[in-house]
Amino acid sequence: MSSVQELRVNEQAVELAPPSDATLRFIGTIRTPWHDRKDCPRQGHHDGPECQLVLDPVWHDALEGLEDYDTLEVLYWLDQSRRDLVRQSPKSDGRTFGTFALRSPVRPNPIGTAMVKLVGINNGTVVVRGLDCLDGTPLLDIKPDRCAFSPKAPPKSGTQTE
Amino acid sequence: MSSVQELRVNEQAVELAPPSDATLRFIGTIRTPWHDRKDCPRQGHHDGPECQLVLDPVWHDALEGLEDYDTLEVLYWLDQSRRDLVRQSPKSDGRTFGTFALRSPVRPNPIGTAMVKLVGINNGTVVVRGLDCLDGTPLLDIKPDRCAFSPKAPPKSGTQTE
Repeated sequence: MSSVQELRVNEQAVELAPPSDATLRFIGTIRTPWHDRKDCPRQGHHDGPECQLVLDPVWHDALEGLEDYDTLEVLYWLDQSRRDLVRQSPKSDGRTFGTFALRSPVRPNPIGTAMVKLVGINNGTVVVRGLDCLDGTPLLDIKPDRCAFSPKAPPKSGTQTE
Repeated sequence: MSSVQELRVNEQAVELAPPSDATLRFIGTIRTPWHDRKDCPRQGHHDGPECQLVLDPVWHDALEGLEDYDTLEVLYWLDQSRRDLVRQSPKSDGRTFGTFALRSPVRPNPIGTAMVKLVGINNGTVVVRGLDCLDGTPLLDIKPDRCAFSPKAPPKSGTQTE
């Protein structure tokens, strides 16, 4: 991890107290073919390899109905990332970009988001295509793609008709 | 909050230890026109009202370059949500769906995600359209929309040519 922790030319870190505003509960583990950061694709592709979202047993019942969706949003925790950079130099060439102008895993809250294609669900494991993260990445959430999802609840006063 | 905490017919909660796997740092606050859950739109719309992402000063420099993007991904913390439901009944009619088959704010890690249109950036405040959350919602992250973003770093071995 030492190479990941070193600052590149013109990168800017800030001093921060330990984070303490809210706490996450990992809900499972992501299995992918990639065991080293340098092997991960830069972005996932829907024709990429099958990956597994392995849910902890307590959450198995929460998958009911997910099979109705073709595209899912997956949230995960990029647990190997430093969190204190405000400016980053992706090419190590001295040119920097603000952290929020990048999709780098290095960010104050290293939450990865991906839109993936659902391949199948079997005994608490969701098989998908389109991820780009390391094998063993902690899983935070699964939701239907917002574009495909029709709210199941009654309309509310602030809801526009479409 | 009591009404939010009550279980509806056939909803299923699980017993959980307090979450302790990772910790979040709020990076700012979201300002929206909605002060009560019942007034929030069900989903944000790109022609909805302007909302403000008010960044804490330590992160102002991290916005550099964000103005180049038209569409942004925003992550926020739904701090009023219970986190222990595996089956939910959005219509309170006894019919339930698994939590992961819904985009409900009630989920093990209540992280909201939205794709929003950038209106402008001024002195650490990002003005956007397309949010649906309560005024005062804690902000977790801002990223360029994955569809519009071209990675700034050199290609890697796992990257497909497009």
